[in-house]
Amino acid sequence: MIIEFIKSENSFLEEIKERLDKEGIKSVVNTAESKICLLTQPESTDLIYTLIDSRKIKDFYKVKYPFKLASRQFKSGNTVVKVNENYVGNGKPVFIAGPCAVESEQQLMVTAEFLASLGVNFLRGGAFKPRTSPYSFQGLGEEGLKILYKAKLATGLSIVSEVVNVEDVEVVAEYCDVLQIGTRNMYNYPLLKKVAKTNKPILLKRGFSATIDEWLLAAEYILSEGNFNVILCERGIRANSKYTRNLLDISAVPIIKELSHLPIIIDPSHAVGVTKYIPPVSKAALAVGSDGLIIEVHPNPEQALSDGQQSLNFEQFKRLYEQFSVEATNKVV
Amino acid sequence: MIIEFIKSENSFLEEIKERLDKEGIKSVVNTAESKICLLTQPESTDLIYTLIDSRKIKDFYKVKYPFKLASRQFKSGNTVVKVNENYVGNGKPVFIAGPCAVESEQQLMVTAEFLASLGVNFLRGGAFKPRTSPYSFQGLGEEGLKILYKAKLATGLSIVSEVVNVEDVEVVAEYCDVLQIGTRNMYNYPLLKKVAKTNKPILLKRGFSATIDEWLLAAEYILSEGNFNVILCERGIRANSKYTRNLLDISAVPIIKELSHLPIIIDPSHAVGVTKYIPPVSKAALAVGSDGLIIEVHPNPEQALSDGQQSLNFEQFKRLYEQFSVEATNKVV
Amino acid sequence: MIIEFIKSENSFLEEIKERLDKEGIKSVVNTAESKICLLTQPESTDLIYTLIDSRKIKDFYKVKYPFKLASRQFKSGNTVVKVNENYVGNGKPVFIAGPCAVESEQQLMVTAEFLASLGVNFLRGGAFKPRTSPYSFQGLGEEGLKILYKAKLATGLSIVSEVVNVEDVEVVAEYCDVLQIGTRNMYNYPLLKKVAKTNKPILLKRGFSATIDEWLLAAEYILSEGNFNVILCERGIRANSKYTRNLLDISAVPIIKELSHLPIIIDPSHAVGVTKYIPPVSKAALAVGSDGLIIEVHPNPEQALSDGQQSLNFEQFKRLYEQFSVEATNKVV
Amino acid sequence: MIIEFIKSENSFLEEIKERLDKEGIKSVVNTAESKICLLTQPESTDLIYTLIDSRKIKDFYKVKYPFKLASRQFKSGNTVVKVNENYVGNGKPVFIAGPCAVESEQQLMVTAEFLASLGVNFLRGGAFKPRTSPYSFQGLGEEGLKILYKAKLATGLSIVSEVVNVEDVEVVAEYCDVLQIGTRNMYNYPLLKKVAKTNKPILLKRGFSATIDEWLLAAEYILSEGNFNVILCERGIRANSKYTRNLLDISAVPIIKELSHLPIIIDPSHAVGVTKYIPPVSKAALAVGSDGLIIEVHPNPEQALSDGQQSLNFEQFKRLYEQFSVEATNKVV
Repeated sequence: MIIEFIKSENSFLEEIKERLDKEGIKSVVNTAESKICLLTQPESTDLIYTLIDSRKIKDFYKVKYPFKLASRQFKSGNTVVKVNENYVGNGKPVFIAGPCAVESEQQLMVTAEFLASLGVNFLRGGAFKPRTSPYSFQGLGEEGLKILYKAKLATGLSIVSEVVNVEDVEVVAEYCDVLQIGTRNMYNYPLLKKVAKTNKPILLKRGFSATIDEWLLAAEYILSEGNFNVILCERGIRANSKYTRNLLDISAVPIIKELSHLPIIIDPSHAVGVTKYIPPVSKAALAVGSDGLIIEVHPNPEQALSDGQQSLNFEQFKRLYEQFSVEATNKVV
Repeated sequence: MIIEFIKSENSFLEEIKERLDKEGIKSVVNTAESKICLLTQPESTDLIYTLIDSRKIKDFYKVKYPFKLASRQFKSGNTVVKVNENYVGNGKPVFIAGPCAVESEQQLMVTAEFLASLGVNFLRGGAFKPRTSPYSFQGLGEEGLKILYKAKLATGLSIVSEVVNVEDVEVVAEYCDVLQIGTRNMYNYPLLKKVAKTNKPILLKRGFSATIDEWLLAAEYILSEGNFNVILCERGIRANSKYTRNLLDISAVPIIKELSHLPIIIDPSHAVGVTKYIPPVSKAALAVGSDGLIIEVHPNPEQALSDGQQSLNFEQFKRLYEQFSVEATNKVV
Repeated sequence: MIIEFIKSENSFLEEIKERLDKEGIKSVVNTAESKICLLTQPESTDLIYTLIDSRKIKDFYKVKYPFKLASRQFKSGNTVVKVNENYVGNGKPVFIAGPCAVESEQQLMVTAEFLASLGVNFLRGGAFKPRTSPYSFQGLGEEGLKILYKAKLATGLSIVSEVVNVEDVEVVAEYCDVLQIGTRNMYNYPLLKKVAKTNKPILLKRGFSATIDEWLLAAEYILSEGNFNVILCERGIRANSKYTRNLLDISAVPIIKELSHLPIIIDPSHAVGVTKYIPPVSKAALAVGSDGLIIEVHPNPEQALSDGQQSLNFEQFKRLYEQFSVEATNKVV
Repeated sequence: MIIEFIKSENSFLEEIKERLDKEGIKSVVNTAESKICLLTQPESTDLIYTLIDSRKIKDFYKVKYPFKLASRQFKSGNTVVKVNENYVGNGKPVFIAGPCAVESEQQLMVTAEFLASLGVNFLRGGAFKPRTSPYSFQGLGEEGLKILYKAKLATGLSIVSEVVNVEDVEVVAEYCDVLQIGTRNMYNYPLLKKVAKTNKPILLKRGFSATIDEWLLAAEYILSEGNFNVILCERGIRANSKYTRNLLDISAVPIIKELSHLPIIIDPSHAVGVTKYIPPVSKAALAVGSDGLIIEVHPNPEQALSDGQQSLNFEQFKRLYEQFSVEATNKVV
């Protein structure tokens, strides 16, 4: 249940929250909109009236969806996630780019410098890789994180990197700015709770065949730990396709925008899985209202240790990126 | 097999075709690119050399895909389908709009006049409706076709209407400019062959869960009857989604553009099935390179006899349409 | 709406039906269970009371599902389809076997004689083949039907063959005992109506990705034309599988048995598409309650013009068939 | 690569393994079949010849599939997993039954005693529940494990329980006989590696939409840690179905039996998700060759804290179980 108050002081809302806490009712406050969402169902609504002066209540309503904190009902304004000096979800699309995996200092530094020179603000790169086969390259681990951090120091780029094990959350959080939860771990609830507690921004990819509700409920695991810095990422769902790796669910963007206040970006690299289809699909992603793109870029895709067939080389990425920059500049916002 | 000749006279190519015919080898000529595609496999390639002066042959190659005439290998230039004074596939997106079903003369005429006043060039409307239940409204039949024709006379709009039965092909062809093959009939090969023979432009929707190859092979049924006026239409594929009717396969556009010379449009109405998601998805469709959109518009969606929940009203359609017109006008082509 | 009467004479029910007809209300009588199903919704239920003596009415109820005549509500007893001297749906599973396509008299006759010698009662074989590519073997047409008929005369086997074109319905009905509607034509409503009118038994395969409701509504198209001789056939649905052609939906059998009175058989050949998996899946099919199996058998699968990789040879089929016969014999029924 | 030796002493094989280890080549020995599987690719095959007397080598071959240790090529004989006094995979199907979640000592003990009285050997029950919503009942945790252990002491049943967090592996292993990896964690590789190291039998459920290869590669993560006690569990895959929760992939059983030596059981409760369809689907599961069934049973399904709609009550389970026992007894094994 959400209780919406007549425009109130933060201190008033916090006091209500404390009273609820004492009764064993967990709740979350949205001060900007004078709302409190009860996460525990009170035994009777009468209790509410004994705790709260009803003249202060503007309205109260049951949340229409299984997710509560992630819903527009609880927070009608868009969530803008701040990452260092950048914003995700403020109307200007972000670009996150970089190799699938950190392979070496040389590979990463040349990529970071290239991206920084274009004006890109975020560098992605996997240090812990969840691979379908135990015999595939599993990432450089902490050494990879150190390389990412070095790239950050050299270029100022914000770092996005995946965490796959609850036992690695702290070390990834130490070196990186955004913690990525990959598609294989969207249902890994202990991991979601653990990353939430770092209070770092979380990039939450949609599971292989996850429904919109399951995905927003995975976000809810993070939000209900008090961390609202969640960026959703649509990366294509499982489908029976000969020509692409997955099937991009482009309509996920307007659906998420309607149901939730969280920003959403698109990963065309995993969605289509083939270099040549990434530019047109990226255009569609931005046209539909995505808050950004995460794209695999590698100095030498043919020699990449993973995902080479879907990585753009520098020239290809530059062409794609500059096209959007020009369009963005020409736009009167 | 495709034989590519050194730039040749049409008469030369036609003569080769005749020689092949005599040997029982069916073939199709692409005069613009001096190519002949053999539809029947000759018993031995030696036969080719006895029929054709090898000095005239530039190259010959096996078609890489199961479809032949629909492939870029046979025709590298885009097919532009002419419908009265309009073109589909020439780089300027077309709009096809109108109600799911023709319900009455009044309903259709008011829609046609509204669309014509905006500058739309194509009117859609079903007279023969393939309905999942035998108890649902099945369309007005020939009466519906006459209403469509009346609307054409009054407004100059080109008419697009579905044909579901081989026995109705002639009557639909008499009244309409483009014959639509609906998603339920993409595998209906006798119907494909029959509509092909009218030589009218054919709008071929993708089957509910059809692969790209199956879809292009359905087109091939039409092309191999000598009718190259085929417009493909992506309308969403079956998926497990609570919030949309189907799942739009946006990457179908660049895939088709790469594999085939045929134009492709998108039907956002059936793809998402919910009015509010149609505008953002339409933007994505045009951004990805679709040759046009087919959109359900109804003067009073709440009272529509079918597909009301996915039909735009006039105000909604106008807003959508004008946005694209402005963008198109601003573009330096 | 279904009206259930106190146990009544057929003549009484027929009289009610006539009265309804006069009022423009189409209806179907189930004499065995003293029920009438109204296919047209009367403008008001008052009309019912003016037409029918309410003391004769035991109950009346809205049909819970979109299909009406196919529902258990309209007919609680199982439909048993009689084909010459055989029954489908009487508790004893039937076997329908034979090649994908009729290729020659020799191929078919040797198969028919082999099957008859084992005690199989039904011969399948396609004369009109709906092929994904226009360049694949399309069947022998009427010549194939004549070969099938010859096999029937020689062996006494009942003939099952597919019809793909409304224009061929009569000729297929002339030579065959059961008309098959293939998976590509489940949504071909004009074809469903036309085959219904032959009053022959219809084998109705499930569409590639058809839902249970869509499938039973396709059956409803046949039933609502007055033909209740419908045998459903589950043949696997579209799925993303490397090791099988389709995904057998084994639970379709108990679902259909619960929702409908129609018999249902399973086609393991198309469901798995690989010879070696057909025997275990056939066992599962019979264990789950399927009324029979339809299996592709070919004297020489490696040389089959279609579906060779999923056809059993004689030895393989014999082993499979005899196992079930033994089990059936041992059973106390 | 697998090296197959002429029938050799274990000591000989172990010695080879040691030599490979020294060269940095990880390998696994199958003593029963005199095979060694190299998990690391040697830089050149010449190295093999310097390490191994070629006269002892019978054959060597590349593994045909991405999984190696799980393949029939490495181990042609069936793996039989021993759990206390019971075997899984020895030709006699096992039954694993019990509630979705441990809710209370009373609920679990009455269930355990009921199952033991029937002759069932395995008790399932979740103490750590991975729930789609953070607000759903998440299980009793360690308290639940203690209740399970108490039930084991009282009845002798072997305990199967899920582990969802790498940090809980030890505590679950302390109280339980079989550690279950649920469908949401099939891609959770750190968890797979951690449970492997307990050397306990692992019940590995297939992911929501996992391919057969991905599933066997998940098993490979466990096997490559030296733990071959893996029982696979097919539990239905994601599908677009109104009448069932998931779609049982019945053909997974013969496919797994062909590709791998690991035992496989079926979970009809999650596959169909509706009580009434569980008995027929269970029959199909055993007919197709499943090594057992895992079924949700609850003393009072209407009041279950999770999965009530798919849990059998005692009477329903008894009827199902006794039917199979009778059939099994009548069988000459």
